[in-house]
Amino acid sequence: MNSAWKPVDVGILLFDGVTQLDLTGPYEVFSRMPNTHVHLIAASLAPVRTEWGLRISPDTTLEDAPRLDLLCVPGGWGVDDCLEDERILGFLRARAVDARYVTSVCSGALLLGAAGLLRGYRATTHWMSLDLLASFGAEPVHDRVVRDRNRITGGGVTAGIDFALLVASELFGVSVAQSIQLAIEYCPDPPFDSGSPQHAPADIVRALLERSAGKLNRRRDTVARASARIP
Amino acid sequence: MNSAWKPVDVGILLFDGVTQLDLTGPYEVFSRMPNTHVHLIAASLAPVRTEWGLRISPDTTLEDAPRLDLLCVPGGWGVDDCLEDERILGFLRARAVDARYVTSVCSGALLLGAAGLLRGYRATTHWMSLDLLASFGAEPVHDRVVRDRNRITGGGVTAGIDFALLVASELFGVSVAQSIQLAIEYCPDPPFDSGSPQHAPADIVRALLERSAGKLNRRRDTVARASARIP
Repeated sequence: MNSAWKPVDVGILLFDGVTQLDLTGPYEVFSRMPNTHVHLIAASLAPVRTEWGLRISPDTTLEDAPRLDLLCVPGGWGVDDCLEDERILGFLRARAVDARYVTSVCSGALLLGAAGLLRGYRATTHWMSLDLLASFGAEPVHDRVVRDRNRITGGGVTAGIDFALLVASELFGVSVAQSIQLAIEYCPDPPFDSGSPQHAPADIVRALLERSAGKLNRRRDTVARASARIP
Repeated sequence: MNSAWKPVDVGILLFDGVTQLDLTGPYEVFSRMPNTHVHLIAASLAPVRTEWGLRISPDTTLEDAPRLDLLCVPGGWGVDDCLEDERILGFLRARAVDARYVTSVCSGALLLGAAGLLRGYRATTHWMSLDLLASFGAEPVHDRVVRDRNRITGGGVTAGIDFALLVASELFGVSVAQSIQLAIEYCPDPPFDSGSPQHAPADIVRALLERSAGKLNRRRDTVARASARIP
Protein backbone atom coordinates (compact mmCIF):
# COMPACT_ATOMS: atom_id res chain seq x y z
CA MET A 1 0.00 0.00 0.00
CA ASN A 2 0.98 3.59 -0.46
CA SER A 3 3.07 4.72 2.52
CA ALA A 4 2.31 8.36 1.73
CA TRP A 5 -1.23 8.11 3.07
CA LYS A 6 -2.15 10.92 5.43
CA PRO A 7 -2.42 9.69 9.04
CA VAL A 8 -5.95 8.84 10.12
CA ASP A 9 -7.10 8.74 13.75
CA VAL A 10 -10.15 6.60 14.38
CA GLY A 11 -11.92 6.82 17.72
CA ILE A 12 -14.31 4.09 18.85
CA LEU A 13 -16.41 4.67 21.95
CA LEU A 14 -16.22 1.89 24.54
CA PHE A 15 -18.72 1.54 27.42
CA ASP A 16 -20.07 -1.12 29.75
CA GLY A 17 -22.63 -3.33 28.06
CA VAL A 18 -21.45 -2.58 24.52
CA THR A 19 -22.04 -5.42 22.06
CA GLN A 20 -18.41 -6.30 21.49
CA LEU A 21 -18.82 -7.46 17.87
CA ASP A 22 -20.29 -4.03 17.02
CA LEU A 23 -16.81 -2.66 17.58
CA THR A 24 -14.46 -5.63 17.08
CA GLY A 25 -15.73 -6.13 13.50
CA PRO A 26 -14.93 -2.53 12.47
CA TYR A 27 -11.75 -2.57 14.60
CA GLU A 28 -10.39 -5.46 12.52
CA VAL A 29 -10.98 -3.47 9.33
CA PHE A 30 -9.96 -0.01 10.57
CA SER A 31 -6.71 -1.23 12.12
CA ARG A 32 -5.65 -2.68 8.76
CA MET A 33 -6.06 0.68 6.98
CA PRO A 34 -2.74 2.31 6.07
CA ASN A 35 -1.25 4.86 8.47
CA THR A 36 -4.28 4.53 10.72
CA HIS A 37 -4.39 4.61 14.50
CA VAL A 38 -7.47 3.20 16.22
CA HIS A 39 -8.23 4.56 19.69
CA LEU A 40 -10.68 2.84 22.03
CA ILE A 41 -12.13 5.65 24.12
CA ALA A 42 -13.90 5.16 27.44
CA ALA A 43 -14.89 7.07 30.57
CA SER A 44 -11.82 5.68 32.36
CA LEU A 45 -8.89 3.40 31.58
CA ALA A 46 -10.37 0.46 33.50
CA PRO A 47 -11.21 -2.60 31.36
CA VAL A 48 -14.76 -2.39 30.04
CA ARG A 49 -17.14 -5.31 30.51
CA THR A 50 -18.98 -5.85 27.23
CA GLU A 51 -22.51 -7.22 27.02
CA TRP A 52 -21.68 -10.90 27.43
CA GLY A 53 -18.65 -10.60 29.68
CA LEU A 54 -15.65 -10.17 27.38
CA ARG A 55 -13.42 -7.44 28.81
CA ILE A 56 -11.59 -4.94 26.58
CA SER A 57 -9.03 -2.35 27.74
CA PRO A 58 -9.56 1.25 26.59
CA ASP A 59 -6.62 3.09 25.06
CA THR A 60 -7.60 6.53 26.27
CA THR A 61 -10.33 8.50 27.99
CA LEU A 62 -13.03 10.90 26.83
CA GLU A 63 -10.86 13.79 28.05
CA ASP A 64 -7.53 12.59 26.66
CA ALA A 65 -8.57 11.31 23.23
CA PRO A 66 -6.78 13.00 20.33
CA ARG A 67 -8.52 14.86 17.52
CA LEU A 68 -10.41 12.27 15.48
CA ASP A 69 -10.84 11.93 11.74
CA LEU A 70 -13.48 9.25 12.23
CA LEU A 71 -15.75 8.93 15.23
CA CYS A 72 -17.53 5.58 15.61
CA VAL A 73 -20.15 4.64 18.18
CA PRO A 74 -21.01 0.94 18.60
CA GLY A 75 -24.27 -0.28 20.14
CA GLY A 76 -25.67 -2.83 22.54
CA TRP A 77 -28.08 -2.62 25.48
CA GLY A 78 -25.38 -0.68 27.33
CA VAL A 79 -26.19 2.25 25.02
CA ASP A 80 -29.28 2.95 27.10
CA ASP A 81 -27.21 3.94 30.15
CA CYS A 82 -25.32 6.44 27.97
CA LEU A 83 -28.33 8.14 26.37
CA GLU A 84 -28.67 10.61 29.24
CA ASP A 85 -24.97 10.77 30.18
CA GLU A 86 -23.98 14.38 29.54
CA ARG A 87 -20.27 13.57 29.71
CA ILE A 88 -20.58 11.13 26.81
CA LEU A 89 -23.07 13.24 24.86
CA GLY A 90 -20.83 16.30 25.28
CA PHE A 91 -17.83 14.31 24.06
CA LEU A 92 -19.70 13.19 20.94
CA ARG A 93 -20.96 16.70 20.16
CA ALA A 94 -17.50 18.22 20.61
CA ARG A 95 -15.69 15.57 18.55
CA ALA A 96 -18.26 15.55 15.77
CA VAL A 97 -17.43 19.17 14.95
CA ASP A 98 -14.07 18.45 13.33
CA ALA A 99 -14.39 14.74 12.49
CA ARG A 100 -14.47 13.94 8.79
CA TYR A 101 -16.94 11.13 9.45
CA VAL A 102 -19.41 10.65 12.29
CA THR A 103 -20.50 7.03 12.33
CA SER A 104 -22.23 4.28 14.26
CA VAL A 105 -22.93 0.58 14.20
CA CYS A 106 -26.12 -1.04 15.50
CA SER A 107 -27.87 0.87 18.31
CA GLY A 108 -24.87 3.20 18.56
CA ALA A 109 -27.00 5.36 16.23
CA LEU A 110 -29.33 6.07 19.15
CA LEU A 111 -26.42 7.60 21.01
CA LEU A 112 -25.51 9.79 18.02
CA GLY A 113 -29.20 10.72 17.94
CA ALA A 114 -29.28 11.62 21.63
CA ALA A 115 -26.29 13.88 21.04
CA GLY A 116 -28.35 15.68 18.39
CA LEU A 117 -26.04 14.47 15.64
CA LEU A 118 -28.59 12.76 13.40
CA ARG A 119 -31.26 15.44 13.19
CA GLY A 120 -32.22 15.74 9.54
CA TYR A 121 -30.04 12.80 8.50
CA ARG A 122 -31.01 9.48 6.99
CA ALA A 123 -29.67 6.70 9.22
CA THR A 124 -30.00 3.05 10.17
CA THR A 125 -29.54 0.91 13.26
CA HIS A 126 -30.38 -2.57 14.59
CA TRP A 127 -33.73 -3.65 13.13
CA MET A 128 -35.30 -3.85 16.60
CA SER A 129 -34.62 -0.17 17.29
CA LEU A 130 -35.04 1.30 13.81
CA ASP A 131 -38.28 3.18 14.49
CA LEU A 132 -36.69 4.88 17.52
CA LEU A 133 -34.37 6.92 15.31
CA ALA A 134 -37.30 9.16 14.38
CA SER A 135 -37.47 10.37 18.01
CA PHE A 136 -34.14 12.08 17.41
CA GLY A 137 -35.23 13.74 14.18
CA ALA A 138 -33.46 11.21 11.95
CA GLU A 139 -35.07 9.50 8.99
CA PRO A 140 -34.91 5.74 9.67
CA VAL A 141 -33.75 3.77 6.62
CA HIS A 142 -33.92 0.01 6.41
CA ASP A 143 -30.55 -0.81 4.86
CA ARG A 144 -27.28 -2.53 5.79
CA VAL A 145 -25.25 0.69 5.68
CA VAL A 146 -26.61 4.20 5.18
CA ARG A 147 -24.58 7.21 4.19
CA ASP A 148 -25.91 10.76 4.35
CA ARG A 149 -23.28 13.45 3.89
CA ASN A 150 -20.61 12.66 6.53
CA ARG A 151 -22.83 10.42 8.65
CA ILE A 152 -22.38 6.71 7.98
CA THR A 153 -24.50 4.31 10.02
CA GLY A 154 -24.54 0.52 9.97
CA GLY A 155 -27.30 -1.94 10.90
CA GLY A 156 -27.16 -4.50 13.68
CA VAL A 157 -23.93 -6.05 15.04
CA THR A 158 -22.42 -7.88 12.03
CA ALA A 159 -23.33 -4.98 9.72
CA GLY A 160 -20.27 -3.34 11.25
CA ILE A 161 -18.02 -5.33 8.92
CA ASP A 162 -19.84 -4.21 5.75
CA PHE A 163 -19.95 -0.69 7.21
CA ALA A 164 -16.22 -0.61 7.94
CA LEU A 165 -15.26 -1.82 4.47
CA LEU A 166 -17.34 1.00 3.00
CA VAL A 167 -15.63 3.47 5.33
CA ALA A 168 -12.21 2.11 4.31
CA SER A 169 -13.07 2.69 0.66
CA GLU A 170 -14.25 6.24 1.43
CA LEU A 171 -11.00 7.06 3.21
CA PHE A 172 -8.48 5.14 1.11
CA GLY A 173 -10.18 4.03 -2.09
CA VAL A 174 -11.66 0.76 -3.25
CA SER A 175 -8.37 -1.15 -3.68
CA VAL A 176 -7.42 -0.73 -0.02
CA ALA A 177 -10.86 -1.90 1.09
CA GLN A 178 -10.68 -4.89 -1.27
CA SER A 179 -7.25 -5.84 0.05
CA ILE A 180 -8.54 -5.77 3.64
CA GLN A 181 -11.57 -7.83 2.62
CA LEU A 182 -9.23 -10.42 1.11
CA ALA A 183 -6.98 -10.47 4.19
CA ILE A 184 -9.94 -11.11 6.51
CA GLU A 185 -11.39 -13.60 4.00
CA TYR A 186 -14.73 -11.86 4.03
CA CYS A 187 -16.76 -13.97 1.63
CA PRO A 188 -19.58 -14.70 4.08
CA ASP A 189 -21.59 -17.88 3.74
CA PRO A 190 -24.13 -18.07 6.57
CA PRO A 191 -25.32 -21.64 7.14
CA PHE A 192 -28.90 -20.34 7.56
CA ASP A 193 -30.97 -17.52 6.06
CA SER A 194 -32.20 -15.99 9.28
CA GLY A 195 -30.31 -12.72 9.56
CA SER A 196 -33.21 -10.30 9.29
CA PRO A 197 -36.88 -10.26 10.31
CA GLN A 198 -37.73 -10.38 6.60
CA HIS A 199 -35.91 -13.69 6.16
CA ALA A 200 -36.03 -15.46 9.53
CA PRO A 201 -38.87 -17.88 10.27
CA ALA A 202 -41.82 -15.94 11.71
CA ASP A 203 -41.90 -17.90 14.97
CA ILE A 204 -38.24 -17.13 15.58
CA VAL A 205 -38.78 -13.41 15.00
CA ARG A 206 -41.76 -13.48 17.35
CA ALA A 207 -39.89 -15.37 20.08
CA LEU A 208 -36.89 -13.04 19.94
CA LEU A 209 -39.13 -9.96 20.12
CA GLU A 210 -40.96 -11.46 23.09
CA ARG A 211 -37.70 -12.17 24.93
CA SER A 212 -36.51 -8.63 24.19
CA ALA A 213 -39.77 -6.85 25.03
CA GLY A 214 -38.76 -5.78 28.54
CA LYS A 215 -35.46 -4.30 27.38
CA LEU A 216 -37.06 -2.70 24.32
CA ASN A 217 -39.76 -1.05 26.45
CA ARG A 218 -37.16 0.37 28.82
CA ARG A 219 -35.19 1.61 25.81
CA ARG A 220 -38.31 3.26 24.40
CA ASP A 221 -38.82 5.16 27.68
CA THR A 222 -35.17 6.19 27.84
CA VAL A 223 -35.19 7.38 24.23
CA ALA A 224 -38.32 9.45 24.94
CA ARG A 225 -36.60 11.18 27.86
CA ALA A 226 -33.30 11.58 25.98
CA SER A 227 -34.94 13.07 22.90
CA ALA A 228 -36.75 15.66 25.05
CA ARG A 229 -33.37 16.86 26.37
CA ILE A 230 -31.73 17.65 23.04
CA PRO A 231 -31.02 21.40 22.99
CA MET B 1 -35.36 -20.77 24.42
CA ASN B 2 -35.54 -23.96 26.42
CA SER B 3 -34.14 -23.36 29.91
CA ALA B 4 -33.54 -27.08 30.37
CA TRP B 5 -30.49 -27.08 28.10
CA LYS B 6 -27.51 -28.90 29.55
CA PRO B 7 -24.76 -26.47 30.56
CA VAL B 8 -22.06 -26.00 27.94
CA ASP B 9 -18.54 -24.78 28.67
CA VAL B 10 -16.74 -23.23 25.73
CA GLY B 11 -13.03 -22.52 25.97
CA ILE B 12 -11.35 -20.13 23.55
CA LEU B 13 -7.56 -19.90 23.56
CA LEU B 14 -6.19 -16.36 23.87
CA PHE B 15 -2.56 -15.47 23.09
CA ASP B 16 -0.48 -12.46 22.08
CA GLY B 17 -0.82 -11.64 18.41
CA VAL B 18 -4.15 -13.43 17.98
CA THR B 19 -6.38 -11.93 15.26
CA GLN B 20 -9.07 -10.61 17.55
CA LEU B 21 -11.95 -11.05 15.09
CA ASP B 22 -11.09 -14.77 14.83
CA LEU B 23 -12.34 -15.06 18.39
CA THR B 24 -14.68 -12.09 18.89
CA GLY B 25 -16.92 -13.28 16.02
CA PRO B 26 -17.43 -16.74 17.54
CA TYR B 27 -17.57 -15.23 21.07
CA GLU B 28 -20.59 -13.16 20.06
CA VAL B 29 -22.38 -16.29 18.85
CA PHE B 30 -21.27 -18.71 21.58
CA SER B 31 -22.13 -16.34 24.42
CA ARG B 32 -25.70 -16.11 23.13
CA MET B 33 -26.19 -19.89 23.24
CA PRO B 34 -28.48 -21.03 26.08
CA ASN B 35 -26.88 -22.10 29.37
CA THR B 36 -23.42 -21.56 27.89
CA HIS B 37 -20.34 -20.19 29.61
CA VAL B 38 -17.51 -18.92 27.41
CA HIS B 39 -14.03 -18.96 28.96
CA LEU B 40 -11.13 -17.02 27.45
CA ILE B 41 -8.07 -19.05 28.36
CA ALA B 42 -4.51 -17.70 28.32
CA ALA B 43 -1.08 -18.44 29.73
CA SER B 44 -1.68 -15.86 32.48
CA LEU B 45 -4.45 -13.51 33.58
CA ALA B 46 -2.69 -10.44 32.16
CA PRO B 47 -4.53 -8.68 29.32
CA VAL B 48 -3.53 -10.10 25.96
CA ARG B 49 -2.41 -7.79 23.16
CA THR B 50 -4.08 -8.93 19.96
CA GLU B 51 -2.53 -8.52 16.52
CA TRP B 52 -3.43 -4.87 15.98
CA GLY B 53 -3.30 -3.67 19.55
CA LEU B 54 -6.74 -4.31 21.02
CA ARG B 55 -6.32 -5.77 24.52
CA ILE B 56 -8.60 -8.48 25.89
CA SER B 57 -8.62 -9.83 29.46
CA PRO B 58 -8.47 -13.61 29.87
CA ASP B 59 -10.98 -15.25 32.21
CA THR B 60 -8.75 -18.08 33.30
CA THR B 61 -5.41 -19.77 32.70
CA LEU B 62 -4.32 -22.94 30.92
CA GLU B 63 -3.99 -24.61 34.33
CA ASP B 64 -7.23 -23.38 35.88
CA ALA B 65 -9.61 -23.74 32.94
CA PRO B 66 -12.59 -26.01 33.66
CA ARG B 67 -13.48 -29.13 31.68
CA LEU B 68 -14.55 -27.97 28.22
CA ASP B 69 -17.35 -29.17 25.99
CA LEU B 70 -16.02 -27.14 23.11
CA LEU B 71 -12.41 -26.17 22.56
CA CYS B 72 -11.78 -23.36 20.06
CA VAL B 73 -8.42 -22.08 18.80
CA PRO B 74 -8.38 -18.78 16.89
CA GLY B 75 -5.56 -17.75 14.55
CA GLY B 76 -3.36 -14.85 13.59
CA TRP B 77 0.38 -14.40 13.14
CA GLY B 78 0.71 -14.87 16.90
CA VAL B 79 -0.05 -18.56 16.29
CA ASP B 80 3.51 -19.04 15.08
CA ASP B 81 4.94 -18.34 18.53
CA CYS B 82 2.66 -21.03 19.98
CA LEU B 83 3.45 -23.79 17.48
CA GLU B 84 6.44 -24.98 19.51
CA ASP B 85 5.12 -24.00 22.94
CA GLU B 86 4.79 -27.29 24.82
CA ARG B 87 2.66 -25.73 27.55
CA ILE B 88 0.02 -24.71 25.01
CA LEU B 89 0.32 -27.88 22.91
CA GLY B 90 0.01 -30.00 26.06
CA PHE B 91 -3.07 -28.05 27.12
CA LEU B 92 -4.72 -28.63 23.75
CA ARG B 93 -3.90 -32.35 23.72
CA ALA B 94 -5.20 -32.84 27.27
CA ARG B 95 -8.41 -30.86 26.74
CA ALA B 96 -9.17 -32.44 23.36
CA VAL B 97 -9.55 -35.84 25.04
CA ASP B 98 -12.90 -35.11 26.67
CA ALA B 99 -14.15 -32.17 24.59
CA ARG B 100 -17.22 -32.89 22.49
CA TYR B 101 -15.86 -30.61 19.76
CA VAL B 102 -12.30 -29.61 18.93
CA THR B 103 -12.40 -26.55 16.71
CA SER B 104 -10.46 -23.70 15.18
CA VAL B 105 -10.87 -20.53 13.17
CA CYS B 106 -8.36 -19.25 10.61
CA SER B 107 -4.73 -20.26 11.28
CA GLY B 108 -5.75 -21.63 14.67
CA ALA B 109 -5.95 -24.91 12.71
CA LEU B 110 -2.15 -24.91 12.50
CA LEU B 111 -2.01 -24.98 16.28
CA LEU B 112 -4.44 -27.90 16.44
CA GLY B 113 -2.22 -29.53 13.82
CA ALA B 114 0.95 -28.95 15.83
CA ALA B 115 -0.74 -30.58 18.80
CA GLY B 116 -1.32 -33.64 16.60
CA LEU B 117 -5.07 -33.15 16.70
CA LEU B 118 -5.76 -32.97 12.95
CA ARG B 119 -3.84 -36.02 11.77
CA GLY B 120 -6.15 -37.90 9.40
CA TYR B 121 -8.80 -35.19 9.52
CA ARG B 122 -10.16 -32.98 6.77
CA ALA B 123 -9.70 -29.36 7.83
CA THR B 124 -9.55 -25.77 6.61
CA THR B 125 -7.78 -22.57 7.60
CA HIS B 126 -6.99 -19.09 6.21
CA TRP B 127 -6.47 -19.38 2.45
CA MET B 128 -2.84 -18.21 2.73
CA SER B 129 -1.92 -21.10 5.03
CA LEU B 130 -4.13 -23.84 3.63
CA ASP B 131 -1.37 -25.96 2.09
CA LEU B 132 0.49 -26.00 5.42
CA LEU B 133 -2.16 -28.19 7.02
CA ALA B 134 -0.78 -31.17 5.12
CA SER B 135 2.46 -30.89 7.14
CA PHE B 136 0.44 -31.97 10.16
CA GLY B 137 -1.16 -34.94 8.41
CA ALA B 138 -4.46 -33.16 7.81
CA GLU B 139 -6.26 -33.08 4.49
CA PRO B 140 -6.59 -29.40 3.49
CA VAL B 141 -10.08 -28.56 2.23
CA HIS B 142 -10.94 -25.28 0.55
CA ASP B 143 -14.25 -24.46 2.20
CA ARG B 144 -15.74 -21.87 4.55
CA VAL B 145 -16.31 -24.38 7.36
CA VAL B 146 -15.20 -28.02 7.40
CA ARG B 147 -16.53 -30.69 9.72
CA ASP B 148 -14.91 -34.10 10.08
CA ARG B 149 -16.20 -36.14 13.02
CA ASN B 150 -15.78 -33.87 16.07
CA ARG B 151 -13.30 -31.51 14.44
CA ILE B 152 -14.86 -28.31 13.05
CA THR B 153 -12.53 -25.82 11.39
CA GLY B 154 -13.33 -22.43 9.87
CA GLY B 155 -11.54 -20.44 7.18
CA GLY B 156 -9.92 -17.03 7.62
CA VAL B 157 -11.01 -14.46 10.22
CA THR B 158 -14.64 -13.65 9.31
CA ALA B 159 -15.36 -17.33 8.62
CA GLY B 160 -15.55 -17.59 12.41
CA ILE B 161 -19.10 -16.23 12.34
CA ASP B 162 -20.34 -18.82 9.83
CA PHE B 163 -18.39 -21.45 11.78
CA ALA B 164 -19.92 -20.48 15.12
CA LEU B 165 -23.47 -20.52 13.80
CA LEU B 166 -22.88 -24.05 12.53
CA VAL B 167 -21.47 -25.03 15.93
CA ALA B 168 -24.52 -23.47 17.66
CA SER B 169 -26.81 -25.58 15.48
CA GLU B 170 -24.79 -28.72 16.27
CA LEU B 171 -25.05 -28.11 20.00
CA PHE B 172 -28.55 -26.67 20.29
CA GLY B 173 -30.37 -27.24 17.00
CA VAL B 174 -31.12 -25.05 14.03
CA SER B 175 -33.73 -22.82 15.71
CA VAL B 176 -31.28 -21.61 18.35
CA ALA B 177 -28.68 -20.83 15.68
CA GLN B 178 -31.28 -19.01 13.57
CA SER B 179 -32.38 -16.93 16.56
CA ILE B 180 -28.78 -15.89 17.24
CA GLN B 181 -28.29 -15.05 13.56
CA LEU B 182 -31.37 -12.82 13.73
CA ALA B 183 -30.19 -11.11 16.94
CA ILE B 184 -26.81 -10.26 15.43
CA GLU B 185 -28.48 -9.29 12.14
CA TYR B 186 -26.20 -11.54 10.16
CA CYS B 187 -27.41 -10.97 6.62
CA PRO B 188 -24.01 -9.98 5.24
CA ASP B 189 -23.79 -7.65 2.27
CA PRO B 190 -20.13 -6.94 1.49
CA PRO B 191 -19.74 -3.75 -0.55
CA PHE B 192 -17.10 -5.49 -2.72
CA ASP B 193 -16.53 -9.03 -3.99
CA SER B 194 -12.96 -9.43 -2.86
CA GLY B 195 -13.13 -11.88 0.03
CA SER B 196 -11.18 -14.77 -1.49
CA PRO B 197 -8.27 -15.17 -3.90
CA GLN B 198 -10.78 -16.66 -6.36
CA HIS B 199 -12.86 -13.46 -6.38
CA ALA B 200 -10.46 -10.62 -5.59
CA PRO B 201 -8.76 -8.73 -8.42
CA ALA B 202 -5.52 -10.55 -9.35
CA ASP B 203 -3.29 -7.54 -8.64
CA ILE B 204 -4.74 -7.24 -5.14
CA VAL B 205 -4.11 -10.93 -4.43
CA ARG B 206 -0.56 -10.60 -5.73
CA ALA B 207 0.17 -7.45 -3.68
CA LEU B 208 -1.18 -8.98 -0.47
CA LEU B 209 0.88 -12.14 -0.98
CA GLU B 210 3.97 -10.03 -1.62
CA ARG B 211 3.42 -8.00 1.56
CA SER B 212 2.90 -11.23 3.53
CA ALA B 213 5.79 -13.19 2.01
CA GLY B 214 8.23 -12.60 4.85
CA LYS B 215 5.74 -13.68 7.50
CA LEU B 216 4.56 -16.64 5.41
CA ASN B 217 8.13 -17.86 4.89
CA ARG B 218 8.82 -17.70 8.62
CA ARG B 219 5.56 -19.55 9.26
CA ARG B 220 6.56 -22.23 6.74
CA ASP B 221 9.85 -22.78 8.61
CA THR B 222 8.12 -22.89 11.98
CA VAL B 223 5.51 -25.34 10.72
CA ALA B 224 8.28 -27.59 9.36
CA ARG B 225 9.98 -27.68 12.78
CA ALA B 226 6.70 -28.07 14.67
CA SER B 227 5.48 -30.94 12.49
CA ALA B 228 8.75 -32.81 13.04
CA ARG B 229 8.12 -32.70 16.81
CA ILE B 230 4.70 -34.35 16.85
CA PRO B 231 5.02 -37.57 18.86
